[in-house]
Amino acid sequence: MTRVSSTDTSQPVFEPVRLLRTERERSQLKTDEINTFLESSPEQRQLTHELIDQIVNDPVLKCDTGYYEQEKLQERENTVKKIARLALYMEEDIKTVRQHFKGTDLFQSLQEDSGSLPPLSNKDLSIFDKRLSLLANIDPQLSTRVGVHLGLFGNCIKGNGTDEQIKYWLQERGAVLLKGIYGCFAMTELGHGSNVANLQTRATYNQNTDTFTINTPDLTATKWWIGGAAHSATHSAVYARLIVKGKDYGVKTFVVPLRDPVNFQLLPGITIGDIGKKMGRDGIDNGWIQFRNVVIPREYMLSRFAKVTPTEDGKDVQVNIEPQLDQISGYSALLSGRVNMVMDSFRFGSKFVTIATRYSVGRQQFASTKGAEESQLIDYSLHQYRVLPQLAIAYMVSPAAFNLMSTYYSTLDELYSVSSNKNDKGLKTVSAKLKNLFISSASLKATNTWLVANLIDELRQCCGGHGYSQYNGFGKGYNDWVVQCTWEGDNNILSLTSAKSILKKFVDAATKGKFDEELDSDLFDYLDPNFIRQVYTHEAEADLVDDDLSSYVEVWSIALVSLLVHIGKTIQKTKDFERITKLLILVSKFHAFHTMLKAYYEKLSDNASPVKDEATKEALWDVFKLYSVYFIDKFSGEFQQFKIFTPSQITTLVQPKLLELLPKIRQNCIALTDAFELPDQMLNAPIGYFDGDIYHNYFNEVVKNNPTEPDGAGKPPYHAMLTTMLSRGYETDERLGGSSSTSVLEKLGK
Amino acid sequence: MTRVSSTDTSQPVFEPVRLLRTERERSQLKTDEINTFLESSPEQRQLTHELIDQIVNDPVLKCDTGYYEQEKLQERENTVKKIARLALYMEEDIKTVRQHFKGTDLFQSLQEDSGSLPPLSNKDLSIFDKRLSLLANIDPQLSTRVGVHLGLFGNCIKGNGTDEQIKYWLQERGAVLLKGIYGCFAMTELGHGSNVANLQTRATYNQNTDTFTINTPDLTATKWWIGGAAHSATHSAVYARLIVKGKDYGVKTFVVPLRDPVNFQLLPGITIGDIGKKMGRDGIDNGWIQFRNVVIPREYMLSRFAKVTPTEDGKDVQVNIEPQLDQISGYSALLSGRVNMVMDSFRFGSKFVTIATRYSVGRQQFASTKGAEESQLIDYSLHQYRVLPQLAIAYMVSPAAFNLMSTYYSTLDELYSVSSNKNDKGLKTVSAKLKNLFISSASLKATNTWLVANLIDELRQCCGGHGYSQYNGFGKGYNDWVVQCTWEGDNNILSLTSAKSILKKFVDAATKGKFDEELDSDLFDYLDPNFIRQVYTHEAEADLVDDDLSSYVEVWSIALVSLLVHIGKTIQKTKDFERITKLLILVSKFHAFHTMLKAYYEKLSDNASPVKDEATKEALWDVFKLYSVYFIDKFSGEFQQFKIFTPSQITTLVQPKLLELLPKIRQNCIALTDAFELPDQMLNAPIGYFDGDIYHNYFNEVVKNNPTEPDGAGKPPYHAMLTTMLSRGYETDERLGGSSSTSVLEKLGK
Repeated sequence: MTRVSSTDTSQPVFEPVRLLRTERERSQLKTDEINTFLESSPEQRQLTHELIDQIVNDPVLKCDTGYYEQEKLQERENTVKKIARLALYMEEDIKTVRQHFKGTDLFQSLQEDSGSLPPLSNKDLSIFDKRLSLLANIDPQLSTRVGVHLGLFGNCIKGNGTDEQIKYWLQERGAVLLKGIYGCFAMTELGHGSNVANLQTRATYNQNTDTFTINTPDLTATKWWIGGAAHSATHSAVYARLIVKGKDYGVKTFVVPLRDPVNFQLLPGITIGDIGKKMGRDGIDNGWIQFRNVVIPREYMLSRFAKVTPTEDGKDVQVNIEPQLDQISGYSALLSGRVNMVMDSFRFGSKFVTIATRYSVGRQQFASTKGAEESQLIDYSLHQYRVLPQLAIAYMVSPAAFNLMSTYYSTLDELYSVSSNKNDKGLKTVSAKLKNLFISSASLKATNTWLVANLIDELRQCCGGHGYSQYNGFGKGYNDWVVQCTWEGDNNILSLTSAKSILKKFVDAATKGKFDEELDSDLFDYLDPNFIRQVYTHEAEADLVDDDLSSYVEVWSIALVSLLVHIGKTIQKTKDFERITKLLILVSKFHAFHTMLKAYYEKLSDNASPVKDEATKEALWDVFKLYSVYFIDKFSGEFQQFKIFTPSQITTLVQPKLLELLPKIRQNCIALTDAFELPDQMLNAPIGYFDGDIYHNYFNEVVKNNPTEPDGAGKPPYHAMLTTMLSRGYETDERLGGSSSTSVLEKLGK
Repeated sequence: MTRVSSTDTSQPVFEPVRLLRTERERSQLKTDEINTFLESSPEQRQLTHELIDQIVNDPVLKCDTGYYEQEKLQERENTVKKIARLALYMEEDIKTVRQHFKGTDLFQSLQEDSGSLPPLSNKDLSIFDKRLSLLANIDPQLSTRVGVHLGLFGNCIKGNGTDEQIKYWLQERGAVLLKGIYGCFAMTELGHGSNVANLQTRATYNQNTDTFTINTPDLTATKWWIGGAAHSATHSAVYARLIVKGKDYGVKTFVVPLRDPVNFQLLPGITIGDIGKKMGRDGIDNGWIQFRNVVIPREYMLSRFAKVTPTEDGKDVQVNIEPQLDQISGYSALLSGRVNMVMDSFRFGSKFVTIATRYSVGRQQFASTKGAEESQLIDYSLHQYRVLPQLAIAYMVSPAAFNLMSTYYSTLDELYSVSSNKNDKGLKTVSAKLKNLFISSASLKATNTWLVANLIDELRQCCGGHGYSQYNGFGKGYNDWVVQCTWEGDNNILSLTSAKSILKKFVDAATKGKFDEELDSDLFDYLDPNFIRQVYTHEAEADLVDDDLSSYVEVWSIALVSLLVHIGKTIQKTKDFERITKLLILVSKFHAFHTMLKAYYEKLSDNASPVKDEATKEALWDVFKLYSVYFIDKFSGEFQQFKIFTPSQITTLVQPKLLELLPKIRQNCIALTDAFELPDQMLNAPIGYFDGDIYHNYFNEVVKNNPTEPDGAGKPPYHAMLTTMLSRGYETDERLGGSSSTSVLEKLGK
């Protein structure tokens, strides 16, 4: 029995359980209302909890701390085990949406006789998508490994395929049901990641056979990092240069089979290797692919916006490209990932915030006066400064993430509908909406994945050594998380791209008075020419007024305009675009802060807000204020440099507010983290469990995962190496192959 | 043959090899001189290279990318294999220092007949210590696992033991020679890390038997995180409360045997368990220890400054404690680790800077105009801003690290000498020096381990997806590194402690005109009351003047005073110490920046500087300026708020300098990283190898580490799970345990 109980009453007794209980007894907040707020609506909330309950209790899907002990191959295998189980949930989820449990076999009808039922749509997958998103919070590599197939391969086909192609690959062949075929997304190459337009894999049209030949021209054109390629994919969505009659039409998309789905043998011309060990997410089988004269039918080219058509006599060929949407839709497969990563930021953030906050409340260290009970970490001002803004970050992502998700679905539905109906005017509108969606999702994805990477790291440090134990989740959490800053668009590139689009809108507004009231009045309201003028003439000035909470949002509108004005002037003066790239990153970040504050503000001040209780509402406003003030203080250099606030306003307005909010929010910090309603099994980190019994919970997991050594307690399998070393005695010279004793040397020297 | 060569000349050809060659041909810098500068002196430099050469070519010690594939137990075992080999190098190293290769067996003489030769000293270990420090750059867990024994266990005995105790445990028993016994350092407990004074393990004196009984009173008193405890240690240096006749004398140190060194069985009363999986450094066998009535002789208490002595008649007992040094020396074991971590920051930083800089030069992405060759990453201004300040960080640590190391050794020698001679006046001086050493090492350790954690993360992101591959070193590098921010003193606690001492010195200087010319005129020169007055009266004003390079150091002196003045005023006004803790962290950081800039400035402007070539010197001054300017810009919020610079100075002075320095340093970036002279085997990251053949090198390592699957290429061992899932057919309802067909349901419904 290794468990030692605390029975010696003369010792300072650690009672984290009592400390957490006290917090809960003291708090008046309605965590129910908060959770509904965070989960967007009562219906969504209910679904979230039903799904979480299934996930964390499913015998195959659930995770415990043993999860952190897995080796690479185990992770790969267990991930597939879970995917096979998910396939069954998926069928259930679709039947639930369709309300189709009786009469016919829904999937047989859909796959074999697809005409009689409406085709599978995004809506059909809505429950399952949410399931995957929640699953990402306990097993991110699992969600990604399925997500590559459904989200990337699937969306590449949805975004670029004709209606018939979509139906064939996803529905008839079964891809969308996780059956028949398994796809991967072969975009990135060894030599090209961000610069997609310059990918080098080639798809050359062969007029004689009406086929394409896919080739990897050199090493750097090897498809690289392809999730699913190493072990699982039977098919790939390949980004390759379309070459017809010697002319290069740029990068298009093709479905290329890789493996025989029955016996899993690689098809001829396909070379595949394992990318091997990564920083994290080893459960995903990333691989590399080389194509050597791989022939596919012309019809495997995805042809919604770019089509190769042989003339009727077969003697010539036509290439038709829809310029407006070809490129934007070419990359649209990545959109879904970006949108999901914003939601992930909310969920992953809230997980680590819960763990660290509970630990900060339960952990005591140092007493304020000699002999007194040691203080709880959370009562140190510095610790509040380290933990509570991270809590605010998790809170603030949620409303923006739900908004983004719904804009994503509505825009894609619109795109799908207008492009199926060849509606030209509609295409123009949807193309503008898509561009805005690109800006928003890029800025929110980059900003939040960075913030959450930092959140995990900072909160791990807040848990001291115990944060470094793999069993408390931070290590694998961080390693799994940080790739989000790189994939689906590198954060710096995404920030630059979105900021350049914002800068262009700004120049149009400031110099030509242009502003698209319909499309831009929500997320880009600060680009209204009237507002720009007000900032310019100091009619609008930054302030933080508690009577007018919108001032906490507006301060960022003013900051954005001031920053953009500075950038504009710098370019005018220096004509040097490179000089301002560092500032463009800020534009993207400030835009994201503004979007998040605005979404939260609107949701909480809405009459329909689920938060009715006044004290609860006030606490949520404090979180909102903290977020705004925390980042003003973080970026106080820019706020002063661009004259948004004076140095003395930083000292007398901003920083006092920060120091005033922290202890206020600290009072409710347990309620505010309980309100995420994450069960222990989803936290999977014993120092953060609900009951607050930090030390027993943690100790028990350590003991469970490290059974007594087979050769005897505390005796490692390699103990002989140690005893040999320690007992090596004094005969140094002989042991080292000779002797240095005077008598021997004398003999040798003769 | 998986290697594809670039033969297709019609494709954009990536030639990273050529790009790196061009850089080297163009640069005029004398990398030889720079390396001598970085390695502190020609002698030190030569030793460094001799040791590195041995390390990276030793068949047991060397690492290749297979190192990144190891599982926990393998890591543990291989680390011990290496320690056993190191033991032999250690003997060689000591013989080299002693120049003792002939005549007698040096170690037999030292261990058996220790009177005839001078005892082993720090100097005897100087070569081996350097070997360990360099080894940390390819295998940090190895250095730590040995370092816990030598550095923590050993230094605990050296710092707290009497001369005879030191000689017995370290020399006669062989600990310092890695033989006889193996030690661990049992300080931290499950419930107490930073607050050492409140550790709960007890050592109760038994008058009848003249012994101590060691006990773990409750679960939270379990010794936790103890490196070496799980598998290797035969002895521990235990921090426990000394209890004599019911009185608690506070925490003292005791040597407690854990395992029989011959058969490795745990001794009675000792319970030990494995801490298990960590975020990194799994090669270290961290464990937990509980003591249940473990009896040790009174003489096993380390008694240099605290001694328990029974009266001659055995009827009473006296406790003598040397108040001046008891506490400071109690923690001095951690000093060595902190000092080493500053050196590690230089070496680890330079490793990742080399990798990322070479990659940034060799990698191309996006062309500035259509059809042009794609640009090298390093030519983007934003990329320069991300990479080059990190290079400056690695450069700037070096002189301060070497200074700190030498102060550490001289101060400890002095302490050892005056405390052996009972020299009271000397004790006072050395105690003051120790306090300064605590401040310096704390501030430099905290600041630099944070900076390097961030450096690794930022540079990994600079390498895009390839940075996420484990084979390029960033993943394990980061995971191994970040614990440095927590152990041997949590960075926040260390920063607060050092800043509080600086604040106290400041208050003494500003209000009482106190200043210790002799002790403080080097690292604390900004606390000279005259200087404080000058800052206060604006006689001294911040500027950055290229004719007077010391202005780049002085700006930080002014910043420190301004910050301290602000802190002083805030405390005066609010009487609230908690309010300023966030600012105290800045004091510690600014102090570290100041120390590093000053050390570098003095070393480079010294006539004896090894850098003679003018162009080389200028390049090194640019690095120096970049460091200063980069951090002014980073902390421009504080610089403006505390009126060190005006907003317009940030715009017209600081930021233009930053943008002017980056492209200048970019010109020499390959020479400046080549100058670290790190061989490929030490980098162990194929995208960063010297020849710049990024893609082939990287591809080959991936292929080498991931051989073809045994069941067939690209066919995973678990492929049946995939084929079963994909071929599961349409019979959904039956498969799920029943049927929903109308006819069946009709029958069932009857």
